[in-house]
Amino acid sequence: MCPAKTTSGVERGFVIPIGGAEERDSNPVILQRFVDLCGGSAAKIVIIPTASQLEETGPNYETVFLRLGAGSAVSLPINTREQANESEYLSQIEQANGIFMTGGNQLRLSTILGGTPIAQAIRRSNAQGTHVAGTSAGAAIMPEHMIAGGPKGLLPNEQGVTFAPGVGLINKVILDQHFSQRNRLGRLLSATSYNPFFSGLGIDENTAAFIGPDNELEVVGGGCITVIDPSKLSHSSMASASRGEAVTLINMKLHMLAAGARYNIDTRQATPMDKPS
Amino acid sequence: MCPAKTTSGVERGFVIPIGGAEERDSNPVILQRFVDLCGGSAAKIVIIPTASQLEETGPNYETVFLRLGAGSAVSLPINTREQANESEYLSQIEQANGIFMTGGNQLRLSTILGGTPIAQAIRRSNAQGTHVAGTSAGAAIMPEHMIAGGPKGLLPNEQGVTFAPGVGLINKVILDQHFSQRNRLGRLLSATSYNPFFSGLGIDENTAAFIGPDNELEVVGGGCITVIDPSKLSHSSMASASRGEAVTLINMKLHMLAAGARYNIDTRQATPMDKPS
Repeated sequence: MCPAKTTSGVERGFVIPIGGAEERDSNPVILQRFVDLCGGSAAKIVIIPTASQLEETGPNYETVFLRLGAGSAVSLPINTREQANESEYLSQIEQANGIFMTGGNQLRLSTILGGTPIAQAIRRSNAQGTHVAGTSAGAAIMPEHMIAGGPKGLLPNEQGVTFAPGVGLINKVILDQHFSQRNRLGRLLSATSYNPFFSGLGIDENTAAFIGPDNELEVVGGGCITVIDPSKLSHSSMASASRGEAVTLINMKLHMLAAGARYNIDTRQATPMDKPS
Repeated sequence: MCPAKTTSGVERGFVIPIGGAEERDSNPVILQRFVDLCGGSAAKIVIIPTASQLEETGPNYETVFLRLGAGSAVSLPINTREQANESEYLSQIEQANGIFMTGGNQLRLSTILGGTPIAQAIRRSNAQGTHVAGTSAGAAIMPEHMIAGGPKGLLPNEQGVTFAPGVGLINKVILDQHFSQRNRLGRLLSATSYNPFFSGLGIDENTAAFIGPDNELEVVGGGCITVIDPSKLSHSSMASASRGEAVTLINMKLHMLAAGARYNIDTRQATPMDKPS
């Protein structure tokens, strides 16, 4: 799915995939920035803990967001497709100006929320200005095409990644999380080479891409975002490789982006924090 | 050191870094190609086992090369700097048409051979047409600047690699071995970003770069060579990064090259096996 259409004159909200394991206590730069973006004391944040199977996940984030100054923070305990139709929850999403999806298992997110009014409400709200953040599984689910699995390692291969449809808040990118920590370059290379339409974003733990309505992202947090831009890919042996065979990919572009650096998803231009004058 | 000068009209020998753990028994494509390149039954191969501290390393390779059809294969047990002056060994190197340096510890190679007549003889012989192959530590030592160590992981950082001077058979490249197996992208990115003059070659196990006298390499073996070309690097925060801080690198080029693919070290052009017509 493509992102829902914005109404004329209304700016889409930020989409904020986080690579997992973001700091919540000592130096919570990512979550603080999210709360501030949502208006600080005017922030009305709704938490969707569906990916997690731990009951405390949602309430814990309520505590964190309130401590960081949010006006309100409410977790919606959506654990079944039936609950993903509850009008009470829908109404809370519609009134929120920030939505946060927790980590856990991204296939829980896609199987429980996919095609429900809650998923539609998240898409519609974002199009109307609500900021949507998600960490780990909550980040994975954001694009049109979600990485559902794949082996560790540096090398791409023919069975290097599995996809599932995501919520479709953003397109033109493939996301991976826990990126350097779980050694996932190979599956991101596999994913982007399957169809070089996408930029691949490998997001480290405690690192986030704040993707603005102009489709430019800024890196926030302590790690890197590894960007694979396959738009100039001049040769790929992916289609002819047999199982386990090494794959040739020629002319991929690679950016390593630390805090403050930017990447424009439309133009595929990367910019350092301190732009040269 | 730069490669020794070739005599007018004489073509330099191949330089063949191997990423370690090359097949010796079931499907020894790399070692077979080396033996064939040296002339098969006319091949006179000298083995330098200095990197290894195992007595059987040299004799084992004698057996392998003879089984693969080499005319002769002799291991020179050079374990001290004194032995690296022996005229008998020098004369054997001068008569060889193939030199093979085994794996082990590359700092043994550089500390024992560095500055000795043996090192000079290897350089001079290569310039005069002798092919020089080396695996693991024996590959590491080949360039002017040798990677001596560095942490595992995907991300470059300010302390991401340590260098030592190598034998200088090739320049304009930095080599790393056991590349995907030991998760070494970060240190190759660190190395190439320190000075973007170099192309970085990350050579997998059971994979070799056959670098011809025209400075074009062909990939042979079962894995990949990961090529980092930093020549278009437009921004690097490496010089200002503090210890452990994430580093921004913008506009690196990345090629994943499987068997048959080529890379020209001078022009930095990568070519697939099946060139498009």
